[in-house]
Amino acid sequence: MAKQRVLTGITTTGTPHLGNYVGAIRPAIAESQRGEFDAFFFLADYHALIKSHEPNKVHQSSREIAATWLALGLDTDTTTFYRQSDVPEITELSWILTCVCAKGLMNRSHAYKAAVQANEQNGDDPDFGVTMGLFSYPILMAADILMFNASKVPVGRDQIQHIEMARDMAQRFNHLYGETFVLPQAEVGDDVAVLSGLDGRKMSKSYGNTIPLFLPEKKLQKHINKIKTNLLEPGDPKDTADSTVFEIWQAFATPEQTAEMRQKFADGIAWGQAKKELFGLINEQIAPARERYIAILEDGQFLEAELKKGAEKARAHAAPMLDKVRKAVGLSAFK
Amino acid sequence: MAKQRVLTGITTTGTPHLGNYVGAIRPAIAESQRGEFDAFFFLADYHALIKSHEPNKVHQSSREIAATWLALGLDTDTTTFYRQSDVPEITELSWILTCVCAKGLMNRSHAYKAAVQANEQNGDDPDFGVTMGLFSYPILMAADILMFNASKVPVGRDQIQHIEMARDMAQRFNHLYGETFVLPQAEVGDDVAVLSGLDGRKMSKSYGNTIPLFLPEKKLQKHINKIKTNLLEPGDPKDTADSTVFEIWQAFATPEQTAEMRQKFADGIAWGQAKKELFGLINEQIAPARERYIAILEDGQFLEAELKKGAEKARAHAAPMLDKVRKAVGLSAFK
Repeated sequence: MAKQRVLTGITTTGTPHLGNYVGAIRPAIAESQRGEFDAFFFLADYHALIKSHEPNKVHQSSREIAATWLALGLDTDTTTFYRQSDVPEITELSWILTCVCAKGLMNRSHAYKAAVQANEQNGDDPDFGVTMGLFSYPILMAADILMFNASKVPVGRDQIQHIEMARDMAQRFNHLYGETFVLPQAEVGDDVAVLSGLDGRKMSKSYGNTIPLFLPEKKLQKHINKIKTNLLEPGDPKDTADSTVFEIWQAFATPEQTAEMRQKFADGIAWGQAKKELFGLINEQIAPARERYIAILEDGQFLEAELKKGAEKARAHAAPMLDKVRKAVGLSAFK
Repeated sequence: MAKQRVLTGITTTGTPHLGNYVGAIRPAIAESQRGEFDAFFFLADYHALIKSHEPNKVHQSSREIAATWLALGLDTDTTTFYRQSDVPEITELSWILTCVCAKGLMNRSHAYKAAVQANEQNGDDPDFGVTMGLFSYPILMAADILMFNASKVPVGRDQIQHIEMARDMAQRFNHLYGETFVLPQAEVGDDVAVLSGLDGRKMSKSYGNTIPLFLPEKKLQKHINKIKTNLLEPGDPKDTADSTVFEIWQAFATPEQTAEMRQKFADGIAWGQAKKELFGLINEQIAPARERYIAILEDGQFLEAELKKGAEKARAHAAPMLDKVRKAVGLSAFK
């Protein structure tokens, strides 16, 4: 039996941080190394254009994310690792899906509705600042998924709707033109590790509270020192439950190391000492990858070659699929 | 000085009729033969998918329209004649423009507003039956135009807004990313000949009142016989002003022939006789092209070769243009 195909996209606006690493990158690479699935990973740079109109940032982020995945051991022979914009078939499929997608479906998108609500609260026009990119990106996302007949798409809770929309478009297309697309399933990772950031809220680029994954040692230490703690003095027993330091520790530690740190908290470890130990733990784990990261980041030719290899593999699926879709809708050569 | 570039698209949903011929095809081919402009003509088959979900009709219409233009003498060496869907760069540019296009702009599109109004009058949801294709096609149209830096786009009054929208997107892009696109100008043909159909309303596919251009002789005669006339008897003087027969006559006749027919109307020509003469006039003019049309329509290889030649010429412009656009937004190879 063919392996199930799993597809994951990473929007290229930002620098990978510890939260991305623990919640997405590390488990994805581990899974790909087990080889149970036919894994597709892509840099979602067409999506990045919705969020960022700064070309240098989009470009730099693509580069950093690609270097991160490669430095962490993604095997580009057993997986398909590509840049979305190297597969032009995707925008073509996206247009074809645009023609079968009801506008009403997009009106109900959470991301769009949130933008409208924020505008209304500010007394602005409901569509103030909303681009067509924001409004219609679930169509591009459907094209990303349906192009490769991906059956399994790991997403957070906030993304379930997009997979349902992709199913909707696939069903509508299949109904109009005959069976063409596999209906994708959302796979919601309820056990996805969500890491807190410097200020105790979820670590996220949009909160500006991240710890970038491959900071130089000294900067990593500085960032870790900035993690918000309470005012308890050295010697005061500390609660692990509401501690970001402990939470991050746990995400990197073995069960034994976690038990030890729990005891140290009960024993009143000073915050400075706890942070020092946290830095040591993280640094030890990521230092070898960081060295590779720095080398890869500077080696544009290697990066480009790896992504071109992935694009070739992706297009080997995309081209015949698009051909089938084009025939189905009536866009085929004259005979 | 380089010739001005003129761009014209023909949506591939339907069979060319006398109205298309007189209003659009004949003047376009005549202009292209004068060679004053660098003329781009394309079969808008991506657009056709918005209006038609019937693959055979879309395909057949593309074929008929291509054969029509070639049979009527379009010179594919001096012009660029291509099928939109043979230039995949267009959907890619369309997505990039989607990311800079305000949703508010699309909300104001006449075609969308007309659909909403019709729904509201019927007591339906405002977006009932509206696809994202209908909603966002001005973006695809902007990509069609901006891709080739077309400076002149001949349109009817109802299309002026789309050119303004393309200008808007071009300006927004140039503002965000630096000068990239030429701002297109609408060229409104006020003297465009509009032909009436069988029922006296404007000849249009949507009214079902057309006379297809290349009907076999007998069928052409039958269609012409169905043109609505008043009840005046042979011998009664007839008014040329409200006569569809006279209007179509005028569109095909020399000034001398028009003067002669005006006299015959005053003299009370029978409707049957007038229609017989009209058939003779039209048939004489289009018979040679009809023969070529039938031969070309059956010669899929020739058609395909002509369109592939056009696509190559079009892509020779589109590929470097898209390259420039991709670099501007941050989608470029790593170095």
